[in-house]
Amino acid sequence: MKKLINDPADYVDEMLDGMVAAHPDEIRRIDTTKVLVRREIPEGKVAVVSGGGSGHEPTHAGYLGPGMLDGAAAGEVFTSPTANEVQEMIDACDAGAGVLLVIKNYEGDVMNFETAGEMAEMGDVEVAQVVVNDDVAVEDSTYTSGRRGVCGTIFVHKVAGAMADRGGDLEAVERAAQRVIDNVGTMGAALTSCVTPEKGSPTFDLGEDEIEIGIGIHGEPGVERTGMMSADEIADRLATAVLDDVEPEGEVATIVNGMGGTPLSELYIVNRRLQELLGERGLETWDAWVGDYMTSLDMRGCSITILDLDDELKELLAHEADTPALTVRD
Amino acid sequence: MKKLINDPADYVDEMLDGMVAAHPDEIRRIDTTKVLVRREIPEGKVAVVSGGGSGHEPTHAGYLGPGMLDGAAAGEVFTSPTANEVQEMIDACDAGAGVLLVIKNYEGDVMNFETAGEMAEMGDVEVAQVVVNDDVAVEDSTYTSGRRGVCGTIFVHKVAGAMADRGGDLEAVERAAQRVIDNVGTMGAALTSCVTPEKGSPTFDLGEDEIEIGIGIHGEPGVERTGMMSADEIADRLATAVLDDVEPEGEVATIVNGMGGTPLSELYIVNRRLQELLGERGLETWDAWVGDYMTSLDMRGCSITILDLDDELKELLAHEADTPALTVRD
Repeated sequence: MKKLINDPADYVDEMLDGMVAAHPDEIRRIDTTKVLVRREIPEGKVAVVSGGGSGHEPTHAGYLGPGMLDGAAAGEVFTSPTANEVQEMIDACDAGAGVLLVIKNYEGDVMNFETAGEMAEMGDVEVAQVVVNDDVAVEDSTYTSGRRGVCGTIFVHKVAGAMADRGGDLEAVERAAQRVIDNVGTMGAALTSCVTPEKGSPTFDLGEDEIEIGIGIHGEPGVERTGMMSADEIADRLATAVLDDVEPEGEVATIVNGMGGTPLSELYIVNRRLQELLGERGLETWDAWVGDYMTSLDMRGCSITILDLDDELKELLAHEADTPALTVRD
Repeated sequence: MKKLINDPADYVDEMLDGMVAAHPDEIRRIDTTKVLVRREIPEGKVAVVSGGGSGHEPTHAGYLGPGMLDGAAAGEVFTSPTANEVQEMIDACDAGAGVLLVIKNYEGDVMNFETAGEMAEMGDVEVAQVVVNDDVAVEDSTYTSGRRGVCGTIFVHKVAGAMADRGGDLEAVERAAQRVIDNVGTMGAALTSCVTPEKGSPTFDLGEDEIEIGIGIHGEPGVERTGMMSADEIADRLATAVLDDVEPEGEVATIVNGMGGTPLSELYIVNRRLQELLGERGLETWDAWVGDYMTSLDMRGCSITILDLDDELKELLAHEADTPALTVRD
């Protein structure tokens, strides 16, 4: 599989440098690490940081900026960042009011972020953490005890970042993040496998007429391998599973997320059916995002995320944000 | 090739409805057409409209909103919208100060937009037009006399839309658009062919170790078919060709544009080398965009756009814009 890369060993390094080169006034890279942080973090603001293996771009560094993340620690492709680098990020981002760690539920991430948090607390930084586990497809998986953390994480970044930007203390920011986690669900489907730069061939085999429902963002197994389905059938299947889990009753926010190799036009076709189905269920969509938010390298496919809203979550989602991958105006 | 679609014949219709479903308060579809327009266009503002064949999403409807486009006419995949539908768009968008048509240089588009403009003028709408021809790869092509119009069109949308939003009259808006056209160049490379929904197989054959330099956004032939190159070599090749044409001397704005199937991470790797090369040439990048702006369905590959800046262009690029695909804050 052809890729726009140089040496596969430099993939993450060069990608991170390319992000900084696109936003040199806003983002900097901490020397000798794979950590990107905001150049200016307001004094006295709670810092919100996240991170994880690379290959999910724009996650996470694409969400660095006012109203969202202050720091993003990258690992190699599909590999957790080290505890030491996460600790460097925490120390760099603390602006005197503590640091919230937003962790996707993968064993490596949870272990390294927890260790880093403990090390930072020994250095007198106040640390709190939340673990995102929004993937409703499966309990336990290749790298996970419990449910996997996937695209719902972006709503956590948005809401926690907004609460921090509005002056909320660490407990308030943690509570807002947890409120998203308690009310969000996601499920994905793959038309093709992702191809890692190092391996250069598909991570898993999927026939020319097969798709996988409930796929993970590293290609972890889903719930069913089936013949090709229409966009509407896939939307129905994913949305129904998420709705059965989240059980929203009023207004929702949705994401139709591309897996990296899916054209935007196809995501809009999925969004058309998703919004139709939500209307049939008597739900009202307050905001609908469509695009690549949490990808799996060059995988073709999509995921659907649904967040059950209340007034506070709506206010925080509407709060201004200015990041490379997501901008919300006043 | 698997796609997230239903009946291929419904591809454009359902995609447009899915865009409206994502932005129902901002965008509406004119009944019985493939034209999307802003719900509210300020009275007395020059309207800026564009359009062309589908398959280049988010182009053009993704740029509908304050500070950019007022109307976007879509055709079937890679097929010009009809003159009648373009005229309906012009009539719907005219707010009393005239309408600028931004046309990509393809014979069908030029013919249908010109005819539509003449029909609208007979109905007493003041119309001006510009033709974007930024692709430096080839003179004349499959659907084109002269150079093709590609990703530089997005800078034209941004600048013309800003001038209109600031109250410029039709002549000023046309002049600003033309100033971009006179100072912008683009060149692309394909790693894979696009696959149209109707055909379902590659538009052109490209071997597993081949790429095509100078590709058009409908898969039109480029300047060279060659063995696989590194991201840096591709960036150098594309950027050098554009720089030789545009000959900027001071500050530039750049786009590393994905063709639809390219992961964002790879585009950042290309951007890293592009910005390095511009620095080596003594040029300063004032703004760098990285993402999918002008795609070719699911093609893998990228294009590089470079715009030679002056103070007025910088002001207009920095002017606020709020659209599904591009947001610029004050």
